[in-house]
Amino acid sequence: MNNSKPVRPELREKVLRAVEETGFQPNAIARSLVSKETRIIGVMIPDISNNFYSNLLYGIDSVISEFDYSMFLAISDEAVEKERKYLRLFKEKQLDGIILSSIHFLEGHSQTLHEIEVPVVVTGHDLHGYQIPTVNVNNVQAAYDATAYLIGLGHRRIACISGPLWDPPCGLDRMGGYRKAMRAHGLPIPEGFVAEGDFTAKSAYEAAKRIFEEQERPTAIFVATDLMAVGVLNFLHDEGIRVPDDVSVMGFDNLEIASLTRPMLTTVHNDPYMYGRAAGEQLLKQLRGETVERMSTVPHDLVIRQSVKALV
Amino acid sequence: MNNSKPVRPELREKVLRAVEETGFQPNAIARSLVSKETRIIGVMIPDISNNFYSNLLYGIDSVISEFDYSMFLAISDEAVEKERKYLRLFKEKQLDGIILSSIHFLEGHSQTLHEIEVPVVVTGHDLHGYQIPTVNVNNVQAAYDATAYLIGLGHRRIACISGPLWDPPCGLDRMGGYRKAMRAHGLPIPEGFVAEGDFTAKSAYEAAKRIFEEQERPTAIFVATDLMAVGVLNFLHDEGIRVPDDVSVMGFDNLEIASLTRPMLTTVHNDPYMYGRAAGEQLLKQLRGETVERMSTVPHDLVIRQSVKALV
Repeated sequence: MNNSKPVRPELREKVLRAVEETGFQPNAIARSLVSKETRIIGVMIPDISNNFYSNLLYGIDSVISEFDYSMFLAISDEAVEKERKYLRLFKEKQLDGIILSSIHFLEGHSQTLHEIEVPVVVTGHDLHGYQIPTVNVNNVQAAYDATAYLIGLGHRRIACISGPLWDPPCGLDRMGGYRKAMRAHGLPIPEGFVAEGDFTAKSAYEAAKRIFEEQERPTAIFVATDLMAVGVLNFLHDEGIRVPDDVSVMGFDNLEIASLTRPMLTTVHNDPYMYGRAAGEQLLKQLRGETVERMSTVPHDLVIRQSVKALV
Repeated sequence: MNNSKPVRPELREKVLRAVEETGFQPNAIARSLVSKETRIIGVMIPDISNNFYSNLLYGIDSVISEFDYSMFLAISDEAVEKERKYLRLFKEKQLDGIILSSIHFLEGHSQTLHEIEVPVVVTGHDLHGYQIPTVNVNNVQAAYDATAYLIGLGHRRIACISGPLWDPPCGLDRMGGYRKAMRAHGLPIPEGFVAEGDFTAKSAYEAAKRIFEEQERPTAIFVATDLMAVGVLNFLHDEGIRVPDDVSVMGFDNLEIASLTRPMLTTVHNDPYMYGRAAGEQLLKQLRGETVERMSTVPHDLVIRQSVKALV
């Protein structure tokens, strides 16, 4: 029953005999004791009320359910304690594989990850220093492309509202791509042009307010998530600043809401459903004993709608 | 190992002896064979990409995780075949309890539900003819209240876009509450004033277009879900019809998006997180052997924002 080795034949026989003698049909639990397969995948996400993660789950489920795997869902609420608890549970319940989207505890807790004896895939994070396969969009490149698109349309004064810096993909990476693009095109970044949101529309509303108190206003803003971009659109609407006539707004994620705003949001397509499918496929490959790449990159795209205008 | 009876002592002993002789620590699976507790709750929802259901899950998780129960997630995609498959799986995996939000198959498949031997709670549906506890908002009354509020503000020509009729809570019940309020106030419902959406913003956009082709336009529209109300707001925006100056719009659900639209949506507060918590609590009560009401009603409220105006 040690998860890392095949079941010893004598144990297998003993359990089967016990089941036989009592005349019961082996049920899923008894069977999994013997076959060592639960056909359950543990999935840990930080937040289920966030559309991004619910669509990630949908993608994972659509792949694994085809192969008759089911999902054990762990919601960590971004709490390190819960992350550790669920990893212990995953092990105890002898799940067949694990997909992790919530790994705050990583810093300094690499041991926990190294002790997992079943296949693991991590999504949304690049795990430097681990052998664990990851599935991720190239956030730096995508933010670079979004910013370069604004620059290509003639914008020079471009502000940026990033995700929180404790979230490397939406904070550091997307901010980093913006900075890289500005630098590559020889454009300065005024100090007041860069702000950090906390993923809520409200935080971006406030950040935009601060940015527009600057003496020189930006002609375009790159916002690291669509939900925060909605906060920016609302600030501009409430101030009577027209989008895109006065200011262009570029989002990131291409959530459903991006096509429901007026004007509709130009954004980066970063499909959590495809993330989920890719993660599910990487995990299934491992379960079949196939080798997988250490890092798979989910492609990104610009989705051109109505919130960005060329400067003439 | 038959779920309906205690484990027979001889089997219990045999399994424990097999485990002992081989020198292994009993793991969660071996332990659950003996204790008959998996501490896993099966939760079945139709659609995870819908914010309503992801927040329902969040509410359920917040209650059960406090008592060290975890969640086995089943996404049915509204497919009867998947619903049956997952119910079989729930049984096989010997989950301790079940919360169902997806029960399309119910008509004519009552046998399946009657065969479940663990505690069950159904959310979002009133299960007439079953003994299964349900958790639900009073959709008829809530829709009645929303419509009566519009009437109280002086509106007489009120249109309604309901959910699809195959979904009783959002289709029949919310439409029913609207009809009941109109009738109670002696107001006629012109034929073209009633339309059915399919939950998408797009379907409501199209429905609103048809309603506004009528010779006599409505002064207010009651829309059975917030997401569809966004579709209506967008149609009116694109036509240059002002909300609430020309037309009032009332939503239902109070999703996050209701406070992100411009104007912000006046709507019915119908909190899926609270649903989830109530369902989790009803299930925990059953697991502790306490009696539960057959039907619990989650309270609703009107949330007054900016999309509805009094007629003078």
